[in-house]
Amino acid sequence: MRPLLAAQSSDRLRLVSAESVVGMGDKPSYALRHRKDSSMYRAIAAVADGDADAAISAGNTGALMAMGRYLLHTHHGIDRPAIATRIPTREGYCYMLDLGANVDCSAEHLCQFALLGAALSEALDGRAAPRVALLNVGEEEIKGSEQVKLASRLLRERSGLNYVGYVEGDGIYAGRVDVVVCDGFVGNVALKSSEGLARLLGQSLRQAFEGSLYRRLVGLLARPIIDELKGVMDPSRHNGASLLGLQKTLVKSHGSADRRCFAQALRQARLEVIQQVPAITNAKLAQLI
Amino acid sequence: MRPLLAAQSSDRLRLVSAESVVGMGDKPSYALRHRKDSSMYRAIAAVADGDADAAISAGNTGALMAMGRYLLHTHHGIDRPAIATRIPTREGYCYMLDLGANVDCSAEHLCQFALLGAALSEALDGRAAPRVALLNVGEEEIKGSEQVKLASRLLRERSGLNYVGYVEGDGIYAGRVDVVVCDGFVGNVALKSSEGLARLLGQSLRQAFEGSLYRRLVGLLARPIIDELKGVMDPSRHNGASLLGLQKTLVKSHGSADRRCFAQALRQARLEVIQQVPAITNAKLAQLI
Repeated sequence: MRPLLAAQSSDRLRLVSAESVVGMGDKPSYALRHRKDSSMYRAIAAVADGDADAAISAGNTGALMAMGRYLLHTHHGIDRPAIATRIPTREGYCYMLDLGANVDCSAEHLCQFALLGAALSEALDGRAAPRVALLNVGEEEIKGSEQVKLASRLLRERSGLNYVGYVEGDGIYAGRVDVVVCDGFVGNVALKSSEGLARLLGQSLRQAFEGSLYRRLVGLLARPIIDELKGVMDPSRHNGASLLGLQKTLVKSHGSADRRCFAQALRQARLEVIQQVPAITNAKLAQLI
Repeated sequence: MRPLLAAQSSDRLRLVSAESVVGMGDKPSYALRHRKDSSMYRAIAAVADGDADAAISAGNTGALMAMGRYLLHTHHGIDRPAIATRIPTREGYCYMLDLGANVDCSAEHLCQFALLGAALSEALDGRAAPRVALLNVGEEEIKGSEQVKLASRLLRERSGLNYVGYVEGDGIYAGRVDVVVCDGFVGNVALKSSEGLARLLGQSLRQAFEGSLYRRLVGLLARPIIDELKGVMDPSRHNGASLLGLQKTLVKSHGSADRRCFAQALRQARLEVIQQVPAITNAKLAQLI
């Protein structure tokens, strides 16, 4: 690896040896106990020690979260970190969390995610009072699971947060809210199923412009225009999900990220450091709790 | 209404007077108690009494489910009806359930949905051993919520069912399974968020072919080809979701269905009656339980 890195601007890089690897199937508790010499642990430890401003990993999400929580600590008032990412909408984008870090969430956890999402939107986009919504199966108050209904009541009572009520699945992309809050199971499935349908659509579009000579000719003309929509076709194209709720910056990249995607995750981490997301989150929490 | 209907083939229609209406915000228990003279109740009662083979409604889903359960009864071994629909996939289509009838589900309920989905696939498509999967946040055994993990263990123990393990959200559209099982909260959000992104994509595609004269010309050529993909663009285009688990046929149409969509729901109900979905479900349940 050294020769490859030497060809790059090596004065901006420092290598730290890491002997072991966190497996994709490792349980978080196991990884935390037995993988302290992995690159994942070393990178997060560097952030904790002040040797680095942020860590980025494309590895095992559960292990990343466990190590992040252990080494970087959550903010006061936050039980667990949540994974948030930017989603394209009709009006621009919104942030959605949690996307899989927490599969079983209480109403109180959902409220904490709402605070974290609002802080992220304020810090990164300078929005004064980001509109926060809970993801639900209907917009009426009587709809939803017990946790979601309780979380809605708790959020209505909390001043200092612009809680606007429920959105349904299609509301994620409608552009009427800035932050969409849900438990990690629901968020993960919502995002991945959207991506699945978008991929099916992309594939169907390609096939539609195959076959006859006429179709292929029209395809030649239309392709460059259709390709402009790639950002919408693949909502996770904005690679680099934030592990919110930690006192330092930790970013998760897709496991299947290519060079371009991984660079995007690096940019996301840099932006969060520059915009001081953890500090702004802390300040917001101090106001609210 | 009579004059309008008279213009149609009125010998195939019979009018039943219904004095009240189930409101979209009515609680199921309230509707069941106080709306016995609504068209929803009357239609389901006609099925229960043998005056009709199937009932179709575009109204309040919770009320429809409560009335269906009360009047048509669930199969032996089934606690609650589940809503299932056909979803386009890379290889054709699959069935997905539950889509919102049950927001809080136990592992046992998920197992019952798996049986209902397999029976539907067998009855409608003649598949001998439909591949049944649980929707989850990962494909590894350690992933997922407690209910999903327990349901997976229970399904592995059940012979007579071709349980193939977990699929993630994007797996719904991949075409590797015939039946996707999840709780109603997750299913509802997954389907609606997919639809939301597809709608955003459709809108973006239209906009991409506006603006310059060149773009509009290419759009004129490409539009008819792109329009062929409407079925994929809108997964719920196959309108008419089945309320499975009941001893007679009950079909739910989208509330926003137009004439074409509602006709599709009617066809779906007819198909289920002809293919004897309730009887086949009953037989399958008797084998398995």
